[in-house]
Amino acid sequence: MPDLARAVANRTEFAADLFDRLAKTSHDGIGITRASYGKGEQKAHAMMAEAAKSLGLGVAQDPACNTYMTLPGKNRRAPAVLIGSHLDSVAQGGNFDGAAGVVSGLTALAALKDAGITPASDVTVMGIRAEESAWFGVSYLGSRAALGMLPNGALDAKRADNGRSLAEHIAECGGDPEALRGGPGILDTGLIRAFLEPHIEQGPVLEERETPIGIVTGIRGNRRLPHARCLGRYAHCGGEPRWNRQDAVIAVSELVLALDAIWTETEAGGGDFAYTVGKFFTDPGRHAMTIVNGEVQFSLDLRSLDPALLLSMEGRLEEIARSIAARRGVRFELGQITRAAPGRMDTIVRNSLWQGVREKGLGAVEIASGAAHDAAAFAAAGVPTAMIFIRNANGSHNPDEAMRIEDFMAATDLLAWQLTRF
Amino acid sequence: MPDLARAVANRTEFAADLFDRLAKTSHDGIGITRASYGKGEQKAHAMMAEAAKSLGLGVAQDPACNTYMTLPGKNRRAPAVLIGSHLDSVAQGGNFDGAAGVVSGLTALAALKDAGITPASDVTVMGIRAEESAWFGVSYLGSRAALGMLPNGALDAKRADNGRSLAEHIAECGGDPEALRGGPGILDTGLIRAFLEPHIEQGPVLEERETPIGIVTGIRGNRRLPHARCLGRYAHCGGEPRWNRQDAVIAVSELVLALDAIWTETEAGGGDFAYTVGKFFTDPGRHAMTIVNGEVQFSLDLRSLDPALLLSMEGRLEEIARSIAARRGVRFELGQITRAAPGRMDTIVRNSLWQGVREKGLGAVEIASGAAHDAAAFAAAGVPTAMIFIRNANGSHNPDEAMRIEDFMAATDLLAWQLTRF
Repeated sequence: MPDLARAVANRTEFAADLFDRLAKTSHDGIGITRASYGKGEQKAHAMMAEAAKSLGLGVAQDPACNTYMTLPGKNRRAPAVLIGSHLDSVAQGGNFDGAAGVVSGLTALAALKDAGITPASDVTVMGIRAEESAWFGVSYLGSRAALGMLPNGALDAKRADNGRSLAEHIAECGGDPEALRGGPGILDTGLIRAFLEPHIEQGPVLEERETPIGIVTGIRGNRRLPHARCLGRYAHCGGEPRWNRQDAVIAVSELVLALDAIWTETEAGGGDFAYTVGKFFTDPGRHAMTIVNGEVQFSLDLRSLDPALLLSMEGRLEEIARSIAARRGVRFELGQITRAAPGRMDTIVRNSLWQGVREKGLGAVEIASGAAHDAAAFAAAGVPTAMIFIRNANGSHNPDEAMRIEDFMAATDLLAWQLTRF
Repeated sequence: MPDLARAVANRTEFAADLFDRLAKTSHDGIGITRASYGKGEQKAHAMMAEAAKSLGLGVAQDPACNTYMTLPGKNRRAPAVLIGSHLDSVAQGGNFDGAAGVVSGLTALAALKDAGITPASDVTVMGIRAEESAWFGVSYLGSRAALGMLPNGALDAKRADNGRSLAEHIAECGGDPEALRGGPGILDTGLIRAFLEPHIEQGPVLEERETPIGIVTGIRGNRRLPHARCLGRYAHCGGEPRWNRQDAVIAVSELVLALDAIWTETEAGGGDFAYTVGKFFTDPGRHAMTIVNGEVQFSLDLRSLDPALLLSMEGRLEEIARSIAARRGVRFELGQITRAAPGRMDTIVRNSLWQGVREKGLGAVEIASGAAHDAAAFAAAGVPTAMIFIRNANGSHNPDEAMRIEDFMAATDLLAWQLTRF
């Protein structure tokens, strides 16, 4: 076993201990809660900074309260390699979603130091703030703040559980929200050699394939319709003949199945697509056995790795809605559409990771990321980006996340190896 | 114009005045509210009894507080003709749904008296209690109580707005709920020559066809599933590949459209069918853009004039659910099924009504009743039954019911004529 791999293996205890302490500090009785800019997240950042200091790494914080933990490289002026992931979680979530990437980065740097290896350039582990959209309704706030890509109004977004603004929360955690308003980014993307994000897989693909590691091919972009409605006409079903019905339930059901047909057709053609109806509900105040429903509210999330397909879906969706509306006498109000571009993963870094997989004889598969990640923000900013997925049972965003430490260490071994290749 | 028709026409004022006073006494600020066994219904019964007395009719009340207003016939021992409809309404409903039948009966009896005609047998106008299922969750309580056909437990059913039992309400209105428990019916169906119910149309068919009168061919029976569920598995949409999804929204949408296809196919074959999804909702506590929904709650109401089709629909529905469940990895819990048999209308009485339509040169069409009525209870009890629908705009169960008095008087003219034919 090469020295570095052995050094990584010897740090298993270090990683397991960090995970244990993280879990203890943020257990809410049911699962893990580390609200964005809340107490659990704050403690996680402090714990990572403390661990970094104990390893002799340089520790800094930016105005958005992201934590940077740096191992100096041979050439301190060369563009640095960033390893990053988030330290917040959803409410009653799991311990590994996000945190695994930070712990993996610190473990890799510890192993480099233990093995006496100085990387070519600085390597910085970035503990990122506020990736989960559950808290402020906007995703990857910390990384986008660092990149100067915060959406308009984000600082005034209110946290769902307490109604206080992002700016207030940042200030409370010791940050400087005013420095984030309209200014340039904190990070100079020209000085970032690459962004690497290890992350647990949130789906069952690696479990199913009995493979510990996934090399991510891309992060799906999306089109989201958070507040779509279909308006028909309420009627007493007994008296209303079919030709006079304007039934919103049947109309939206038809739209749902039309998207299902597109999914089948796209996959058959080798394309990438997925859609999800996050809500679909008739007005609870009007529920009755005998009512033809005049309104359905629903949401849609359409995803693909393919930007052209996402673009075309907007038109197809409108066309489907128009056709159903004409035939069924209803009206669709599709409402606001939000757009997130697919995150392209860097081919050169991906190929290098595959070389590492082969050299080490690791089990790995190619996998698309259905979910968004901080890596998507870095990719959008033009930084060469790659993600390593770690096998994990039972999905994420719940207390039953089940990442095995062996799988985590395999991914960390690959990460540490990759750090010597830049 | 024959004497009777002229006598009917001369009673237009009498009818219009009764409608006006009814509306005034039960207006709730928005629409008409005459809760079953509530104040508005009670006043309506008192008002009809008083009008009947002023016409010299005999007035009686049964233990369920139904009101009977009788014009004696030549042969007082011959089976009586009943004209009946209900005097309750839904909350914020309209003035004509139900009440029109009672006012029409009283107007016809007034005209018979005015014209000096004594019918062959007694003719009784029955002001019926509690037809609307909105109040006690059970439909046509008054007529079924009179027929000795109250469903088990009905007397203990609670009124939706105040939680007090049907028995308490009946006692409060001066009735005798104990007399209704398990006893024989109050009405001896062998002594009812026919049951006739004039009622506003609750749909737009007569409006659309510019026809004042509908002769009802039958009352649709139903199968109802008030508490159906589909159970899949909640998942974060980003990580969940298609083969692993158990999406309750797509599954129920497919079931909804399968029923739509059956509707199309049944109508194409000349059959009678309709279905309605009264509610369809994902769990509001789980709503999120990115969630694959693990549960949908819904209700179904399947209707037909054809008892064999209704029977077959139970099997077809289970088969559809089984097939979707197998393909989409979900489970359907269809829950309780309630059954109401179609109400057959009496061919001889219907033919007689058509003869009246032709003799008088009235505009009329054949029409199925999609909604249930007291007439269905009489038909189920084996009484020769017929219904006359009266044109009405804007549907029923809302304050915008718009029955024109001319149409009402045309139906009453036909009714009065029919009373001379038994």
